[in-house]
Amino acid sequence: MKKFEEKTIHSESIFKGKVISLKVDDVKLPNGETGKREIINHPGAVAVIAITENNKILFVEQYRKALERSIVEIPAGKMEKGEEPIVTARRELEEETGYTSEDLKFVQAFATSPGFADEVIHIYVAEKLKKLDIPVDLDEDEFVDLMELSLEEAEAMVADGRIFDAKTAFAVLWVKMKMNLKQ
Amino acid sequence: MKKFEEKTIHSESIFKGKVISLKVDDVKLPNGETGKREIINHPGAVAVIAITENNKILFVEQYRKALERSIVEIPAGKMEKGEEPIVTARRELEEETGYTSEDLKFVQAFATSPGFADEVIHIYVAEKLKKLDIPVDLDEDEFVDLMELSLEEAEAMVADGRIFDAKTAFAVLWVKMKMNLKQ
Repeated sequence: MKKFEEKTIHSESIFKGKVISLKVDDVKLPNGETGKREIINHPGAVAVIAITENNKILFVEQYRKALERSIVEIPAGKMEKGEEPIVTARRELEEETGYTSEDLKFVQAFATSPGFADEVIHIYVAEKLKKLDIPVDLDEDEFVDLMELSLEEAEAMVADGRIFDAKTAFAVLWVKMKMNLKQ
Repeated sequence: MKKFEEKTIHSESIFKGKVISLKVDDVKLPNGETGKREIINHPGAVAVIAITENNKILFVEQYRKALERSIVEIPAGKMEKGEEPIVTARRELEEETGYTSEDLKFVQAFATSPGFADEVIHIYVAEKLKKLDIPVDLDEDEFVDLMELSLEEAEAMVADGRIFDAKTAFAVLWVKMKMNLKQ
């Protein structure tokens, strides 16, 4: 859909990094005036709602430099160039949790910050988890702690602010609504 | 929480814009090695789950330059410097929908993209909506179309991808779970 489309008049690349790029676009607004848009390009990400045989949900705690604090999230990671989201999903599940799954199903995709970024996150649900015999290495600059929580424990961590992340807040509601987890 | 804290060794400001800033931090990782973090600073945002007397939910359709498409979202906007989130919430509700409310309640706050941005969005629910006699102007570069949808219509738009936004996907699940909307 292109309603209220803003046509690019000029685009200036400001920064190309390892993870994100920044550009500033001059645009023609729907009323004929011009405006500026500051835009972050991101390769896209995947997150996994992983349910164990004991009906626990897998989370990882990690330090997020942007927030200057540790937060608890569902396993997630950036897509490599040309990678299918389901491949990223299985890889991140393996790297961050030590589990794998042949039963990954697509849940939903959404933009995380459409006001300034093109990041889209693809959410999957993984069941029938199997512990990997040989753990897969994390990225060299990644440090995470695995947590297996009941839905009730996860809801309590949403309430006390330890779960402080949009995709994870969505995941906790989604599990409560769609999965029939017997504890 | 500071688990796995990454201490800043050096911080380089790359860009300071109207909406976002970009810096690249050299950090000391938990294993003693160094790494780089590309970080977007954002003033924070507010979004409003607004429920009409007829049990419809208010949405706005707008063009998102970062995505190069129009998407449907709950009313939302950036916080002005020093503004309390509830003040932003009422202002954005008034500007984007033409309704106001004296009954705004905090729902949850979460980071939208903790991997690279410090943006936090504060979600409110607004009930007992009143139509403003005199509409409030939108920002000069903002163009939105108001939509009043039933929960069922909103769920259909999640399914067909017109609702393609994390806070809005959360909001639709939240309304389904927490509100008893009689259509």
